[in-house]
Amino acid sequence: MAVNWIAPVEEQLFPVDGVRIGCAQAGIRKKGRYDLTVFLLNESARAVGVFTQNRFCAAPVQVCREHLLNGQAIRAMVINTGNANAGTGQIGLTHARQTCSALASRLGISPQSVLPFSTGVIMESLPVDRVVAGLDSAIVSARSDQWLLGAQAIMTTDTVPKAASIKITLGGMPVVVTGISKGAGMIRPNMATMLGFIATDACVEPGLMQAMLQEAADQSFNRITVDGDTSTNDSLVFVATNRAGNPIISQSDAPDAVTLRRAICHVAQTLAQAIVRDGEGATKFIAVTVAGGRDSQECLRVAYAIAHSPLVKTAFFASDPNLGRILAAVGYAGIEDLDQSQIELFLDDVHVVSGGGRHPAYREEDGQRVMTQSEITIRVDLARGRCAETVWTCDLSHDYVTINADYRS
Amino acid sequence: MAVNWIAPVEEQLFPVDGVRIGCAQAGIRKKGRYDLTVFLLNESARAVGVFTQNRFCAAPVQVCREHLLNGQAIRAMVINTGNANAGTGQIGLTHARQTCSALASRLGISPQSVLPFSTGVIMESLPVDRVVAGLDSAIVSARSDQWLLGAQAIMTTDTVPKAASIKITLGGMPVVVTGISKGAGMIRPNMATMLGFIATDACVEPGLMQAMLQEAADQSFNRITVDGDTSTNDSLVFVATNRAGNPIISQSDAPDAVTLRRAICHVAQTLAQAIVRDGEGATKFIAVTVAGGRDSQECLRVAYAIAHSPLVKTAFFASDPNLGRILAAVGYAGIEDLDQSQIELFLDDVHVVSGGGRHPAYREEDGQRVMTQSEITIRVDLARGRCAETVWTCDLSHDYVTINADYRS
Repeated sequence: MAVNWIAPVEEQLFPVDGVRIGCAQAGIRKKGRYDLTVFLLNESARAVGVFTQNRFCAAPVQVCREHLLNGQAIRAMVINTGNANAGTGQIGLTHARQTCSALASRLGISPQSVLPFSTGVIMESLPVDRVVAGLDSAIVSARSDQWLLGAQAIMTTDTVPKAASIKITLGGMPVVVTGISKGAGMIRPNMATMLGFIATDACVEPGLMQAMLQEAADQSFNRITVDGDTSTNDSLVFVATNRAGNPIISQSDAPDAVTLRRAICHVAQTLAQAIVRDGEGATKFIAVTVAGGRDSQECLRVAYAIAHSPLVKTAFFASDPNLGRILAAVGYAGIEDLDQSQIELFLDDVHVVSGGGRHPAYREEDGQRVMTQSEITIRVDLARGRCAETVWTCDLSHDYVTINADYRS
Repeated sequence: MAVNWIAPVEEQLFPVDGVRIGCAQAGIRKKGRYDLTVFLLNESARAVGVFTQNRFCAAPVQVCREHLLNGQAIRAMVINTGNANAGTGQIGLTHARQTCSALASRLGISPQSVLPFSTGVIMESLPVDRVVAGLDSAIVSARSDQWLLGAQAIMTTDTVPKAASIKITLGGMPVVVTGISKGAGMIRPNMATMLGFIATDACVEPGLMQAMLQEAADQSFNRITVDGDTSTNDSLVFVATNRAGNPIISQSDAPDAVTLRRAICHVAQTLAQAIVRDGEGATKFIAVTVAGGRDSQECLRVAYAIAHSPLVKTAFFASDPNLGRILAAVGYAGIEDLDQSQIELFLDDVHVVSGGGRHPAYREEDGQRVMTQSEITIRVDLARGRCAETVWTCDLSHDYVTINADYRS
């Protein structure tokens, strides 16, 4: 059960002119579920991507990077679930390339214009024959109004599909931004979606797209954590189909560029937060804000120390205001010259710690009241600078253990 | 239930001439259990300590550091459980000093010659009156053959007492090293015992003791992790009472110095591993060895990435050879120029991964067989250097969540 997340219905997801989505049941790991998705893009579409920082990155991630560097316009994407094609060595790369070639030949395009994605179990050989056998069915079913089906088809341990859509106006023309994502475990900053796909029909200079995507990722997928495990396969792709008819955006500081960036950021944040809300076993959605830091880096270190602490996360699961665990995490976050006597801690509106010790007016029942909520903000003030950062996480419950102990069975 | 750890009986723990231990039931948090311990040391005893790296360190840790720097011989130590006296601000420091003064006045010694220790819940005020009221009873009960009782009295979420003892010969004289520790959660390198006390009757120059303790800590308490949370209170103290009559050890490279160092290291390692075996909810004891690294630092980064990964730990709990999760952890450990195609992975004697992919001869039933054991060695070869390091950890089970969700109730 995702925390306060109700998946949108298909009618709420605006089709993006120039993007069609098709899905198939290829039986990659289990029968009777959609596990193969293709995105078919029009000729004017351009794509950029950001990928996992994991040095043990999966074969499809390596192929994506190659194909994006190659410079050809991306015309199709293919995503399978059930198998991550990671830790598969040289044969894994061969399988990823075979998948691209098979899709390319069916579409009459170059293999280098296809991006492959895989998610699922690591270190098992990709059943590439089944992937290829499912392609025809995915292609013929492709339509522009199937974003929700796509969101469902890319799920693994997700309990709900994740999709978001927004309509804006650029130069008097309506423009849409629509995206889907998947991921519920092995989620950590530096590409923390397992997979995310965001598309717009806006006309935008390709040279601006990478920075737009990076900014959106840094405010969304790079600010979430479920369990601190950085996946081998994390990929986020941004596509602009250049079909909306708006005056082309060519300056990064132009008003239309700002509007589009905000829209992309909004969609990315919604998708990223949905991943945390659907975090494996999550019962609570927790925002961790660290203010008063000297720079962004130290705010993030403290925020992630809190967000990763199993002791903090289990206390939130139990609704137990054992808040000293938060102070402990602040203390071990690695700020060498931290002055503990300056620390302030708030739980929503409740002032828990002042001057490094329990606030005189703090009553345990006030902490308790906030802890029982399903959405909670932890705010720490380091009182040593003017920078602030927020990350989002969830609690650690029995179900996290159950899900990850049983994942393959 | 600790994994393969049977606590020694009192007869196996050699008294250390010059050290007496007394315990009392002070009702600090719960009634009817030993929660207050004093160590009384003879005049010729000298003590050194290493402490948590947590910047939010507890009041008693701050007072210990002060008193050790002060240079007076340490004559007594006082340990309470049930309350960590951490996150308690200025009043916490006052309480720690009051505890030292109360014990000092009863013993007719200086307050600066007392070291205080606290463990338990963070951010609650220490009931110093109850601590002080219990001191007389602890002092009168002090004896040299009560190490096991001391080990029991310092427990919190520990399920078993942790103690170890060894007898060696230095210059023809018998010498003993005996120690106790406690800790089961909030365990992570850089002081990973919550509390540890090791004493010897050996005659040794005080100037050699700090290096001896640091070396032992680095091979024991600084190589274990349960949950990656560094405590606010971690303290390890080493006492030499100089009563054994051996020729005084004054050169760090003398044969007797080496023998003593090995003995201390052995006791420290046994105590540290006992903490992992008794890790909260642990059902398995896991050694993680990373070889083929360029330096110790990168071996440790990879080893801790594996040992901290909730996904790896839950897979071990489930005896599920989902070993790709180990590769993922290797990949995100932060070695920028790691060549994944060189990685080898073994589970005990089973060769799982070679050249970054599944070993051709690896069969899942072989991995499965090892996973069901209660003691397992994970060995990763990075194939880029000659350094190796080992850390010890445990699995992540339902009981970890239960224990930490219910700890204060």
